[in-house]
Amino acid sequence: MRPREVKIVEVGPRDGLQNEAAVTLEDRIALVNALSATGLKQIEAGSFVSPKWVPQMAGSDTLFERIERRPGVTYSALTPNLRGFEAAEAAGAQEVAVFGAASEAFSQKNINCSVAESLARFEPVMVAAEEADIRVRGYVSCVLGCPYEGAVAPAKVAEVAHALYAMGCHEISLGDTIGIGTPDKAVAMLEAVAARVPMNALALHFHDTYGQALANVAACLELGVSTIDSAVAGLGGCPYAAGASGNLATEDLVYLLNGLGIRHGVELDALVLAGNQISQRLGRPNGSKVAQALTGRCQTQSASGE
Amino acid sequence: MRPREVKIVEVGPRDGLQNEAAVTLEDRIALVNALSATGLKQIEAGSFVSPKWVPQMAGSDTLFERIERRPGVTYSALTPNLRGFEAAEAAGAQEVAVFGAASEAFSQKNINCSVAESLARFEPVMVAAEEADIRVRGYVSCVLGCPYEGAVAPAKVAEVAHALYAMGCHEISLGDTIGIGTPDKAVAMLEAVAARVPMNALALHFHDTYGQALANVAACLELGVSTIDSAVAGLGGCPYAAGASGNLATEDLVYLLNGLGIRHGVELDALVLAGNQISQRLGRPNGSKVAQALTGRCQTQSASGE
Repeated sequence: MRPREVKIVEVGPRDGLQNEAAVTLEDRIALVNALSATGLKQIEAGSFVSPKWVPQMAGSDTLFERIERRPGVTYSALTPNLRGFEAAEAAGAQEVAVFGAASEAFSQKNINCSVAESLARFEPVMVAAEEADIRVRGYVSCVLGCPYEGAVAPAKVAEVAHALYAMGCHEISLGDTIGIGTPDKAVAMLEAVAARVPMNALALHFHDTYGQALANVAACLELGVSTIDSAVAGLGGCPYAAGASGNLATEDLVYLLNGLGIRHGVELDALVLAGNQISQRLGRPNGSKVAQALTGRCQTQSASGE
Repeated sequence: MRPREVKIVEVGPRDGLQNEAAVTLEDRIALVNALSATGLKQIEAGSFVSPKWVPQMAGSDTLFERIERRPGVTYSALTPNLRGFEAAEAAGAQEVAVFGAASEAFSQKNINCSVAESLARFEPVMVAAEEADIRVRGYVSCVLGCPYEGAVAPAKVAEVAHALYAMGCHEISLGDTIGIGTPDKAVAMLEAVAARVPMNALALHFHDTYGQALANVAACLELGVSTIDSAVAGLGGCPYAAGASGNLATEDLVYLLNGLGIRHGVELDALVLAGNQISQRLGRPNGSKVAQALTGRCQTQSASGE
């Protein structure tokens, strides 16, 4: 059931950078351009939200204008509402993303409405996207636990994922927002969702807050999931834990896939370069262990996991 | 086949600290004492090697004298030769460890003799240990790859593991010394070894150089292995990579086991405390992601993985 090929969705420029204080537009453009040279097929490059809420993502229109687009790479953006969608469309985003939570408490605290209300608000985006022939990705957050509610039932995740799929999202990305999952729970959640949404329309989006992301991905690959989100250099953090780790690092994911003989098309060396560059700009250590090892020249004949 | 209970062998005070420049005897004693309060049943506390080779482990006799021993905890030591064994015995080590490599090139470069020669040199230790009724653990290094040879055949690992077992070692710890393994390779290696040594006499000792250690452990648990080595705060490094990650962090392992419902008897909070303390003394960030998250107060109802 393990896939022969995995599509990696690089979310570093959006999910990774949206909590970074010191990021500039130039850094963001340089990062997207560097990532474009690695063989990645999909890069979530920015977010069309109000700069009042997420100042780090301000100027995403300029970013989309100035990046060097590579043929074969899809550049996508988060769009929380119709206004955001229209800006993203005007900027030439090739795919957009909307989001819902699998936790009522999280939805209330985060965007001040119920999960059902939040999904209803995306209806105009879905209509406009269909007219514009732009694909919409749906994110579900808190799929393995919520900072307010604790445990989240797999059935609830499946319900929200199915709702987004039924609304017309072509792909549903299942987010362990606070990174608290472990393999059995990740597998049980994925199984529950896959009973209502086709596996080939599902993606995993795991944060590495407790160091479990790669083990969770490895366990879920056995069920056949074939789209994985990750962020170069493990960019990102946890708003609920100062100093905690961010997203699963793309380099570490690539190393795993190399070792398992699963194709992905990404060049590890170029990825390490891109991650080191942005880490330097942000003045933080590279959060990928593979990058740390390769940069420290732990070179061996099989250091790329192949 | 997954075990109901796992014995964690804490190797931080030995494998973790032996490459640290700034460690003092006081730090080492404080670490062993802090670890003794966590529920850990086995702590590799020191090494009786020549201080010329490993100055960090000098004074292990004093350490064994001064630590506060808890009933039920086994305090063990690495003993490379009869002289080391005698010193360990005199100091009251309750278990000792010898080692062999699964790679001829590594053995030659590291200790200047063949694997077979290295094992023969341990014969006097085995005899003396039997007389003294002290159990001997056998380490096999480079089980998933060698910095000089590259790939290492599972059959070679099985051969060396079996030789140590036949010599009288009660437990064989399989070390991914340079941390380059991925799950399929780890599983294939463990299967090959388990065909020649009983599974309940095997331990995994994985370094996290490429971020794969926990995924590898999770995959191998499915085969029934029930002893795992790890180091609090992910102590240790890779002599072949400046700045690379060290051993699998005990905190992250405990979190995984909690999530899988596998008993281990270790209290996570006490462990995080011990790891933060030694990390502070060494002036380095805590290498455990769980510790980073819990210390940053990413507290949630299921933050301990349970």
